[in-house]
Parts: sequence; structure tokens; C-alpha cells
Amino acid sequence: MRVLVLNGPNLGRLGTREPDVYGSATYPDLVKLCQEAEPEADVRQTDDEGTMIGWLHEAADARVPVILNAGAWTHYSVAVRDAASQLTAPLVEVHISNTAKREEFRHTSLISAVATGTILGLGVDGYRLAIAWLQRQ
Amino acid sequence: MRVLVLNGPNLGRLGTREPDVYGSATYPDLVKLCQEAEPEADVRQTDDEGTMIGWLHEAADARVPVILNAGAWTHYSVAVRDAASQLTAPLVEVHISNTAKREEFRHTSLISAVATGTILGLGVDGYRLAIAWLQRQ
Amino acid sequence: MRVLVLNGPNLGRLGTREPDVYGSATYPDLVKLCQEAEPEADVRQTDDEGTMIGWLHEAADARVPVILNAGAWTHYSVAVRDAASQLTAPLVEVHISNTAKREEFRHTSLISAVATGTILGLGVDGYRLAIAWLQRQ
Amino acid sequence: MRVLVLNGPNLGRLGTREPDVYGSATYPDLVKLCQEAEPEADVRQTDDEGTMIGWLHEAADARVPVILNAGAWTHYSVAVRDAASQLTAPLVEVHISNTAKREEFRHTSLISAVATGTILGLGVDGYRLAIAWLQRQ
Amino acid sequence: MRVLVLNGPNLGRLGTREPDVYGSATYPDLVKLCQEAEPEADVRQTDDEGTMIGWLHEAADARVPVILNAGAWTHYSVAVRDAASQLTAPLVEVHISNTAKREEFRHTSLISAVATGTILGLGVDGYRLAIAWLQRQ
Amino acid sequence: MRVLVLNGPNLGRLGTREPDVYGSATYPDLVKLCQEAEPEADVRQTDDEGTMIGWLHEAADARVPVILNAGAWTHYSVAVRDAASQLTAPLVEVHISNTAKREEFRHTSLISAVATGTILGLGVDGYRLAIAWLQRQ
Amino acid sequence: MRVLVLNGPNLGRLGTREPDVYGSATYPDLVKLCQEAEPEADVRQTDDEGTMIGWLHEAADARVPVILNAGAWTHYSVAVRDAASQLTAPLVEVHISNTAKREEFRHTSLISAVATGTILGLGVDGYRLAIAWLQRQ
Amino acid sequence: MRVLVLNGPNLGRLGTREPDVYGSATYPDLVKLCQEAEPEADVRQTDDEGTMIGWLHEAADARVPVILNAGAWTHYSVAVRDAASQLTAPLVEVHISNTAKREEFRHTSLISAVATGTILGLGVDGYRLAIAWLQRQ
Amino acid sequence: MRVLVLNGPNLGRLGTREPDVYGSATYPDLVKLCQEAEPEADVRQTDDEGTMIGWLHEAADARVPVILNAGAWTHYSVAVRDAASQLTAPLVEVHISNTAKREEFRHTSLISAVATGTILGLGVDGYRLAIAWLQRQ
Amino acid sequence: MRVLVLNGPNLGRLGTREPDVYGSATYPDLVKLCQEAEPEADVRQTDDEGTMIGWLHEAADARVPVILNAGAWTHYSVAVRDAASQLTAPLVEVHISNTAKREEFRHTSLISAVATGTILGLGVDGYRLAIAWLQRQ
Amino acid sequence: MRVLVLNGPNLGRLGTREPDVYGSATYPDLVKLCQEAEPEADVRQTDDEGTMIGWLHEAADARVPVILNAGAWTHYSVAVRDAASQLTAPLVEVHISNTAKREEFRHTSLISAVATGTILGLGVDGYRLAIAWLQRQ
Amino acid sequence: MRVLVLNGPNLGRLGTREPDVYGSATYPDLVKLCQEAEPEADVRQTDDEGTMIGWLHEAADARVPVILNAGAWTHYSVAVRDAASQLTAPLVEVHISNTAKREEFRHTSLISAVATGTILGLGVDGYRLAIAWLQRQ
Repeated sequence: MRVLVLNGPNLGRLGTREPDVYGSATYPDLVKLCQEAEPEADVRQTDDEGTMIGWLHEAADARVPVILNAGAWTHYSVAVRDAASQLTAPLVEVHISNTAKREEFRHTSLISAVATGTILGLGVDGYRLAIAWLQRQ
Repeated sequence: MRVLVLNGPNLGRLGTREPDVYGSATYPDLVKLCQEAEPEADVRQTDDEGTMIGWLHEAADARVPVILNAGAWTHYSVAVRDAASQLTAPLVEVHISNTAKREEFRHTSLISAVATGTILGLGVDGYRLAIAWLQRQ
Repeated sequence: MRVLVLNGPNLGRLGTREPDVYGSATYPDLVKLCQEAEPEADVRQTDDEGTMIGWLHEAADARVPVILNAGAWTHYSVAVRDAASQLTAPLVEVHISNTAKREEFRHTSLISAVATGTILGLGVDGYRLAIAWLQRQ
Repeated sequence: MRVLVLNGPNLGRLGTREPDVYGSATYPDLVKLCQEAEPEADVRQTDDEGTMIGWLHEAADARVPVILNAGAWTHYSVAVRDAASQLTAPLVEVHISNTAKREEFRHTSLISAVATGTILGLGVDGYRLAIAWLQRQ
Repeated sequence: MRVLVLNGPNLGRLGTREPDVYGSATYPDLVKLCQEAEPEADVRQTDDEGTMIGWLHEAADARVPVILNAGAWTHYSVAVRDAASQLTAPLVEVHISNTAKREEFRHTSLISAVATGTILGLGVDGYRLAIAWLQRQ
Repeated sequence: MRVLVLNGPNLGRLGTREPDVYGSATYPDLVKLCQEAEPEADVRQTDDEGTMIGWLHEAADARVPVILNAGAWTHYSVAVRDAASQLTAPLVEVHISNTAKREEFRHTSLISAVATGTILGLGVDGYRLAIAWLQRQ
Repeated sequence: MRVLVLNGPNLGRLGTREPDVYGSATYPDLVKLCQEAEPEADVRQTDDEGTMIGWLHEAADARVPVILNAGAWTHYSVAVRDAASQLTAPLVEVHISNTAKREEFRHTSLISAVATGTILGLGVDGYRLAIAWLQRQ
Repeated sequence: MRVLVLNGPNLGRLGTREPDVYGSATYPDLVKLCQEAEPEADVRQTDDEGTMIGWLHEAADARVPVILNAGAWTHYSVAVRDAASQLTAPLVEVHISNTAKREEFRHTSLISAVATGTILGLGVDGYRLAIAWLQRQ
Repeated sequence: MRVLVLNGPNLGRLGTREPDVYGSATYPDLVKLCQEAEPEADVRQTDDEGTMIGWLHEAADARVPVILNAGAWTHYSVAVRDAASQLTAPLVEVHISNTAKREEFRHTSLISAVATGTILGLGVDGYRLAIAWLQRQ
Repeated sequence: MRVLVLNGPNLGRLGTREPDVYGSATYPDLVKLCQEAEPEADVRQTDDEGTMIGWLHEAADARVPVILNAGAWTHYSVAVRDAASQLTAPLVEVHISNTAKREEFRHTSLISAVATGTILGLGVDGYRLAIAWLQRQ
Repeated sequence: MRVLVLNGPNLGRLGTREPDVYGSATYPDLVKLCQEAEPEADVRQTDDEGTMIGWLHEAADARVPVILNAGAWTHYSVAVRDAASQLTAPLVEVHISNTAKREEFRHTSLISAVATGTILGLGVDGYRLAIAWLQRQ
Repeated sequence: MRVLVLNGPNLGRLGTREPDVYGSATYPDLVKLCQEAEPEADVRQTDDEGTMIGWLHEAADARVPVILNAGAWTHYSVAVRDAASQLTAPLVEVHISNTAKREEFRHTSLISAVATGTILGLGVDGYRLAIAWLQRQ
């Protein structure tokens, strides 16, 4: 099953950045985890909002399901939300950390209301669950 | 693996209540789904806050992981939150519907900040994912 | 015409509790008033949230109209609201006192948006009006 | 029993305006309904705030009870509220639609706190109930 | 002197639950402390809102003073507040922890405005002080 | 000295309306008081917003100072504010009662920021002071 | 093409009132501009809320498009909004000044959500654009 | 007539400080103006909160009327408000500038609700009016 | 007349994206419409914030008027606002849909206060009107 | 046991000031009550913020426990809070009246979060309880 | 270069008070640091608001630049702000700790908007930087 | 000493953009000023969020101190904040203008809470001070 796994800003530094919050798995570990769960998973990361918007347009055109960890954009990028809302295949929002335990500005997600569902706080395993769920649809 | 799957008010009416929001699976379907995923799953439902608090105390004493769908209490019952915060084994919060698409008072969860993680909007399959995650810990 | 007249916490103490706010009629007076207006009226009171939810489920299953004075739950119990929203027959919300003249936290009702209509501040006569209205439907 | 039934802006267009919200009864139907319930009912409608204030002064001087549907003024006209608060006979506030199901700015009533009681969401029958209640005082 | 000492949800787990917040005294220790201070003290605990409301009604009927630690209900149960407001003998609100140092939603008490006074943050000794104060009235 | 003394809704009922708030002086007393203080004072009252706006336009054209008690419009009529802001001669806002002691929605004045100054809570004498002040300019 | 161009309070004073905000064109200039753009344009102005509501009812009955500059009523008159929402032909809201650069209470429009579209800050030319747009529909 | 005219922080610098806001009259001019209006006027100024509180206690004990310009304390000193609320003779609050035209934090007065009335924006003449009003009581 | 017509994120997908909100015209249709109205119109679109900022700097340097549809950036990009505020030629803000009818976070525009004026809700015709207006300046 | 009992503004007037709120005990009565409970109690009162800060520094240096009734400063003086937060011995906050029953601005205490605990609404007996509690530590 | 370095409440206890927040430098160290950087620096500290206001008046009269660490007054003392706003020479606000990392009520400064600039979080070195900056003006 | 001096959107236009706010120094002047103060200073500017995030990652990896003027991103870019929070060497936030004197949305900084300290309003000299401070660490 083809699926786009799209990761937003700073997620390329996984394992380096605040390991007590994000765990010790690195970004390459994450890529591997996703591809083991689903060989056709296409895992990408960008710190550039325009690039992310382009990938979401690509997914919308291809009618491919998306797993989206928009990182910090989750909380303010209406542009990413608008791109995500154009998807017609399922969209699963994933966050590695439990944002409800962090600063108050992280408690609001612009993505959730345009996603099919959300998985948060279950570490990089959240991606595995999202893939498993998509595989059953 | 022993796990308590605790469901709050109105969840006993699954399948009857707003099927466009909650899907067509009934509560017995949900029980069966959980037990297929994990034969030792102990699935319960109550409309009574005191009973739910008691179950959470039981889980805390037994150090058993919990999957909690607190239903409407999610949004106001500090008492259920306080009981949930006493657990030492993992706690996964599950919601069948995507609360971010519903009334604004459903956007706030008192449970999330005391849970390990949250799965929402993925239907009754959310329970399956939560069990799968707990089985890997 | 069968109708459930459901009363929430502290309403069993009518006549005793703040008579300047609630009037001098007692709870037995209220039961009598309802049954004189509609012999098939089934008037109940509980201080227990779970019991109230169960009664609302019963009414939903029986497709019976409900007159609901949720008392203090009006202002915080999303669980009672969710149970009430499952009714398919008409639901009339009644409050004996004019909550708009009382503390600000009583100005918000979680029930109103899921009720057909609301009668407030007209004393125990509000129940009589609600019954009369239901009888005409 | 003499009673003033006062209707605010846009209510003269009942039946024409948003029938799914206000029902199909026309303003003449409403007048007839009130007068059948109480032959001495004096039913009036105005789109002019000053005229409404004058009618309320008239009722205050005559010590006549009032049924008031202030329409849109309910939500902002402190002037109508101040005129209404001068009444010494009972004042019943009526709204045809259930304002709790509509835009948030319609959830606040300046009139409720100076009324004896309020009936909302029961359609034009709300007027009949208000008259019945006044007749029993 | 007869006095009801009423404890709300999760207080039965004292000593077990967050000892750095609530101290090491257990609930049986608390019962003993109260009865040593006042042999006629009737100390009770419940996780069930309806039960607590019933006890407050009992105290209102018996015109007995009450020491109330409503626990988590302090912050949302209008029903417990309404029951408490019916007391005619003194009501002392007690909290073991200093709620002003905890989450913001614990800074608001629905009970304080219907209590005679409040003691908070002085540990289980707060109960002793409340008893001493009642004995002097 | 020519001066317009303009009074808004319900002020024609002075002496009748809430005498504990507004005092026992009647509207004719007020007119007399103003004319004794300043024989050229032109004292008017209206319950009609459009009429008030017209009078303010008249004053703006004539470059006459104005004493304005906009009554309830003070708190919501942007239209009266916009008319008042066109005056080039001084504008003194007067309120008979101390609005700071009344309901919260009376604590905000749309007029104050476009007036030269404000006198409130000094009863009908406030008009006399306003006239005296204008006479000295 | 018949079109009603309806102007609210204080707009009759165009050219006199705050020329740095509204420009130097007078109200007769505005009428002329509209009629040059569309000979059948029926341009009116009133300071009276009831009159404006009546004109909107007239347009609703005639199914004529409307250009509405509700002036200060934009920010508080729910009654004008309710009348405007009854139109079935297009409604273009126009403001001469850029309200986003003025006081904060001018940033909210009750009219926008019931209009087809809005033109603001382009001076009296905004009317010309609105007419041009209507002519193309 | 004995009257205390009490001035708070920075008012000793009148004439020097922001003359476009406060006018060109100096503090000695203000003292003279008051004493000409009322020879027994006792005019004082302090930058020290404790001193102001003491003067208000003195006035409360002597049952002397007070004219209070609390300056910046108006907006935050609950202590000055509490002292002012102990007065039994009339209290007139005066502000030289029109605080409604200044920063938003100056729009709230803690003093107004415990004063008899308030005069603002009429320059140092506000003191003269306050004295004239007190002389008539 | 040279004019830059700058379009923000997701606008390249016009016609594809939510046609009930944005209409059926495609982005190439939009380009054509603008160039027919004004042959020198330079129409551009980007999903990249930095690129948009660069275009605005280019316009500022060339002192060329701009028509800006900042799309989702309208609601959060202070950087785009700051770039837009450097323009010295007129800036017309255009939105295809009526943002006042959509989610609340779309009701606020950071651009409006630095624009000359705004046109919203009139479909792609809004661009034509903006061009027509600029041609007359 | 040495203890500082520090009282803030207006507390020197106890017995005189609003006896229905504060009771009839005078400040000398309060001093006597404290010294009877603890002969080494050092009871002081000041209307001067700087003096209070100095006393708290003295207590911090001497590592003496403090009973603090900061009066009106409780609600705004961050400076008193900062001084209080330097204490290492226990700090008990006392209020004679039940501030939860008074104006909303008295519901917030800057002191509570830096105190060990708080006693409020139990009259001057609150001091006695605070001393008793300190004696047991 | 003459410069006043004015320090507010609790700053005299530097080095003693929360060293993890404020560092280990004592107040005498701070005085020395300033005087080494600028021999004419006049460094003062007070816990008394009136004294601080007086010093600011002195600086205003002498047209001397000021370095102001208003401590806790920063967040509520409008009186200190009003005194500071009278300075005509530059005013540099300094805070030793990074207030943005502390309690929310410390995130707002009344002083910043009347200062030339602000230095915060750089420890006592902030004073040195402020002096260096003033020396270059 | 190696230091990265990173400048966000629109800062490349220094000297051109609002010189009354930002002063007349150009961006090349700024670069020169920094390099004169610290020859190893590496001064960069970008209008592209992704580029800035990359530079911050580079600084985090190199453990180099950073001077960051995030410009408009300061107020909304959680992504830049998250990148900045990964630095382990000191981070000094600089703003050329005094943001506290500008629009309210500029009063909040997402960067401050993850910076060591902040310098604002001291013009381009703020960079010099930041470098001087870093050189002393």
C-alpha cells in the first residue's frame, strides 16, 4: 500500500533533540520503522513550509493516504492545514510526544479537525499504529 | 497480558447513538474486538462516576495498564482524572470519534495530560491499536 | 400520553431549599401537579448522575417525550447532555427559578442546545406548561 | 385579562422569514392564536426601538402584564431592557426558535434577567403557554 | 459535639496517592485524628456524587456542622455546591494540599462561596483546626 | 449661552423609574433646573435613536456645545457615538446614577472617548455642573 | 438593473464628517456616482434603524439586489443583520473607510456573514465596484 | 465647609508633566483654585500609598467629605479603595484628563464604585465643580 | 499600468480545491482574467513565504501597486504583513471566498490594516474589480 | 515560639471598618488574642508596603515563621509576594473575611502560591488556628 | 557621565534571594560593578514606592539618564510608570533574570513602553551593558 | 570568538524600511558593526523560515553562541523557537525597535523563553551589546 509519511520542521533531528521528550530513536530509525511496517511507505522530512504544501498537493492528486507529523506547524500554519484539507484519502495525524503535557500553545492543533484521526504520545510507535490502521482500511 | 478497558457514560449504547459519529459497531462488537486482540482484556462500561473511579483504583493497585475512553467525563470530571493520574502502568486514552471536529467543549481533555498517549477519531479500531501498543511495551 | 418527568440533584428537597428562589411547593406537590396535568406522567428524581443517564436511555429506547430539569447538572454534565441528545421524541427543559437572575455560572446550559425548547423562571407551573405543550404535539 | 403581547423587529415577516427556523405560521396567525387564547390580548409589532420603548412605558403605567418577544433587540438593546425593567406586573419573555441552537451572539439575552420567566424554542405555541401562565396568576 | 466530616473522591487513597502532595498520613490515620479531636466526629468518604449529596442533605436536616473536603468535585460539581449551600450550621471547607500551588483549574472552588470559611495547604492538620474552630462556636 | 441638553431613552420617566437609583426629581424638574442655570439651555429627550442623531447633527452644524446623557445607548450605540464625534464645540457627558456601581455592561461608555469630559453619579446636579463648566469656557 | 443602495446613520453627512477618513465627496456626490454607474440605482440614506429594516424587507419582497453600507449599525444591530439575511438576491456590503485601520470595535461586522461579499477602504469608488459586479451577475 | 482634597502620585508635578494631557496649571495653582472655591479646603498631595491611606482614615474618623484624585493608584491600589470605602461623608472622584481617551489600563477605576460620583476630563476645573457640588449637599 | 497580482499558498490549485467555496475557475483562468483586464498585470503564485516576501520587496522598490491574496498567510504571517507594509503604491487585498462565513480563525486578517482596501467574497471577479479600481487612481 | 504576625493596610481599623464583614473585634483585641495564644507572638500592622517588605526580610533573615494577612495587597502587590517567597520557615496566610463571597478581584491571591497554607473566613479566630498549627510543627 | 541606577523592592537582597534565578552577585557587588563601569553612576535601592517616584522626579528635573530595575513594581505600579514617563533623557529598563521563563504575571511590563529599551536575562551584566550603551549616546 | 548573528525576514531592508522605527543604519552597516565588534562574527539574513531553521541546527551542532533577531517570526514561528531551543551555547535575542511601543501582537515573543536573555529597543547597538556580553562569558 502506497502511503506518504510526511514530517515537518526539526523532526530530522530526532534522537538529538530533547531525548527525554522525543525518545532516543533517530530519524533514520523512524524511516526504517515505517518501511518495515509498510515497504511502500514514502517517508520524507522538510523544514520548509512550501515543500510540505507541495507534498500534500502531490498526495491529494494521487489520492494516496497520508501520515502527517506537522511538528511545530501544527500550531500555526493555516497553509499546511489548507493543503491537508484537500486530501480525499485518509489522513492520520501523529505526534511522538504527548503535546498535552507540554506548553499550552502546543495544546491546539490546526491539523486535527481536517484529519481522520490522531495518535499522540506513543513515541515513534505511533507511526507503526497509523500504518497498521491504514492497512486495514 | 492483563489490561483494563474502561468505558464511560453512554458508551454502552454504541451503534444506537449517532451512528454517523460513532459508527455502526455495537458495544458487544467492541468487547469482542478487544478480546480478540487480547484474550485477557477486561472490558467494562459504566454510566456511574464513582464506579469508574473505583475501577481506576483497582487498576492502580494491581499495576495493570488501562485503556480509558472516559466519554463525556473527559471534558469535566476532575475526579476521574485524579483517579487516572494514580496509575503507574501505561494509560492509553481512546476516543472513537474525532472530538476536534465536534463542539468546542469537546476539544479539551482533562485525561490527556495524565495519559501516556491518546488515539482519537480512528473508530473502534482505536482500541485495537491501543492494545497492540501495550502488547509491545 | 406517557411522558417522563426527570428531576436532577437537590430537587427532592423542593420547598425546603431556598424558598425565596424555588417557591414553597414541595417535591410531592410537584409530583401531584404533574400527574393532575397528565395522569400518565412518570415523575422521578435522583441525585445520582448514572441513574439519570439510565432514565434518559430508557426514554430514548421507548421513544417517550421527556421533561427534564437537570438541576445543577445543567451547567457541567456533558454526560447528561449526551444522554439527552439521544432522545428522538421532544425534550422540554424546565427550570423552576429564573437562572438568568442568579450566579453567572448558571447562565449557561449544556442541555438547551439538545432540547426542543426551554421554560424557565415560571415556578413549578413550568412543568404544567411543558405537559400542556407536549399534549398538543 | 388585559395583556400586551409585544413583538420586535422582523417578527412581522413571520412565515416568510427562514421557515425552517421560525415555522410556517404567519404573523396574522400569531395574532389570532393569542386572541383565541385571551380575547383581551393586545398584540403589536414594530421594527422601531423607540416605539417599543413607548409601549413598555404604557404597560408600566397601566400595570398590565407583558409578553415580550424582543427579537434581535434581545441581544443588544439596553434601552429596551431598561424600559422592560420598569414593569411591575409579570413579564414573560418568549422566543419562537431555540436561540441556544443558533449563532453564539444569540445565546445572551439582556431581557431574561428583568423578566419573570422565559419560554423558548416551542414555536408560536410559546405565546399560548405564556398567556395560560398569566391567566393563572 | 456532633460534626460530619465528609470526604470526596480519591481521598480514601490518602497516603498512597502522590505522597509529596498529600503527605504520608493514610485515610485511617485521618479518621483517627478527627475522632481524637472530637469523639462525636462522624468521618465518611465516597467516590459517588449522589452519596455525597445525600450526606449533605442529612446534615442540613439535622442542622449539624460539616467539615467538607470535596476533593476534585470542588472544581466542577455545582450539584455538591447546591447541596452544601442548604446547610444552616457552619461549613468549613478543608483541603490537604495547597491548591494554589497546583494546576490552574484547581484554583477555583465552587464550595468556598457557600462555606463559612476555608483552610487549605496545612495537611491533615487542617481537619484538626476545623474541629477546634467548630468546638468554639 | 446656547447649549443643547440631550437626553436619551427612558429619561423622560425620571422620578418614576427606580427612584433609589435616579432620585426623585422628575423630568420636568430636570428641564427647569437646566433652564434656571442657563436660560438659553435647550433641553430635549427622545426614545428614538434617529432623532438623537439628528439633534447631534444640528448641534454640529450650529457649533453649539452639548450636554449629553445618552442613557442606555451609552453602552452600545456606535451610531450615537459617531454623531457625537462630529461636534466641534465641547461635549460634556452626564449620567445621573453612578454607573460604576451597577451591572457590568454599564461600566463601558462608547461616548466618553469622544466627549470632552464626563460627570457621573452626582444626580441631576450633574447637569448644573456641566452648564457651569460650559459657561466658564 | 434595479438595485437598492442603502446607507445607514451619519452617511448623509459625507464630506463634512472626518474628511481625512471618509474623503471629500459629499452624499449628493455619492448619489450621483451611483446613478451614473447604474441609472436604475435607488440610493437612500436613513439615521433610523426601523426605516432601514423596512427598506431591506422591501428589497427582500422585490428580490432586488442590495448594496448596503450599514455604517455604525454594522457593529451592533442584530436587527439590521436579521433583515439583511432575508434577501435572496445578492447583497454587497460596502464601507468607504478601511475599518481595519480604525478602533477595534469597528473590526467586527455583523453584516459580512450574511452578505455575498464585502468591499472596504476603497472610498466612494467602492459603490461603483459593487454596481459593476452586480451588473455582471 | 471643611473638605479634604487628596491628590495621589505625580500630581505634585502638575504643569510640568505632559501639559498637553494635564494642562498648564501647576500644583500651586490647583491649591489656590480649591481654596478660592472653599477657604476651608485642605489640599494635600503624596506619592506614598501609606500616607494617602492615613489621610483617608483621618477623613473617615472626622466624617469630612473628600475630593480624591488617586492618580495612578486609581487603576490598581485596592488598599486605597478599601480606605476610601470607609468614608461616610460624600466622596467625589476627580481626574484632570479624560482617562477614556488614554491607554486601556486607565479605563478601569477601582475608586468609582466606592465614590458617590466622578468628574473626569474637565481639567483642574473638575475640582471647582466637585467643591460646588459638596457645598450644595 | 504595471501591477503585481500576488497569490499565496494553495491558490495554484484553484478550481480543484473546495469548488463550493472557491468556485470552478482554475488558476490559469484567474491569470487570464487579470491579463484581459490589464495586459501589464504580472500574476504570480507561490506556496513559499520567503518568495512572497521577496516579491513584495520587489514591488516596494519598483513602487508598483499590488493586488495581494495572501491565502492562509493572511491569518498568521506577520512576515508577509511586514513586507506588505513597505509598499508605497496602493495595495488591494482580495479574497475569493467570503472569509466571514468560514472558520473563526479566518475572520482576522493581518493584511487588512496595512492595505489600502479589501475586497472579499466576490469570487475571482474580485481581482477584476481591484484592477479596475487601480486603473482609476 | 517566636512568630511574626504581620497585618497589611486598613487592618489597624478592625472593628470600625465594615463590621458585618470583619466582625466587631478591634485591632487591640486581635493583638491580645494572638499573644494569649502565643506569648512570643510579635504582632504588627502597617499601611506602608515598604515597611511590610522590610518586616518580611527580617523574618527571612531570622528564619522565624510568619502569619501574614496582607489585606488589600494580597490582590496586587507582587513586591510583597516576592518578599514573602524568601521565607524559609512556614508562612500561614490568614484572611478574616471569606474573600470568596466578596468582589471578584478579591478571589485571586498572589500570596497563596508562596504560602504553606491559608485560612480564610473564620474571623479573627483564624489567627488562633494559625498559631496552634505553627506550635505543632 | 552622570546616570541614576534605580533598583526597586527586594533587590537589596540580591545574592541571598533565589540565587538560581538571580545569580550569586550581592547588591554591593552590583553597586561596585556599576561604579567601575561609570564612576559617576549613582546607584540606589528602595522598597518604598514613594521614594522611587521621588528619585524619578529628581532625574526628570536633572535631565539625567536612568537605568531602572523596578523589580516587582514592573508588573503593577502605574505610579512608577507615570513617573518614569516624565524622563526626557534615555531610560534603559534592566531585569537580572529572564522574566519570560517565570510566572505568567511577570511577562508583562508597564515600564517597557515608556523606556527607550530593555535588557533582560543577562544577569547583573545587564547593568554594565546599559551603562555602555548610555556612554555611547 | 565564533558567533552566529542570524537575522529574519525583512531585516535585509534595514535603513529602507520605516526608518523612524528602525533607524537609518542599513543592513551592510549592521554587518560591519558586528564584524568590527567581533571579527569572527558570521552575520546572515534570510526571508525563508526553513533556511533559518537550518542555520540554528548548524549552530546547535557546532555549539556556537547565537545572536538571533527573528524579526516577524518572533511572534508566531513555533518552528524557529523549536530550532532555537536546541542550542546549548548562549542565545541572545535582539530587537532593534522597542516592540513594547508597537502593535499588541508584537508584545509576545516565542523566542524569549528559550533565549538566555533579550535586548530590545536599543537600535543596532543592541547587537554590539550582545557581542560584548558573549565575549565576557
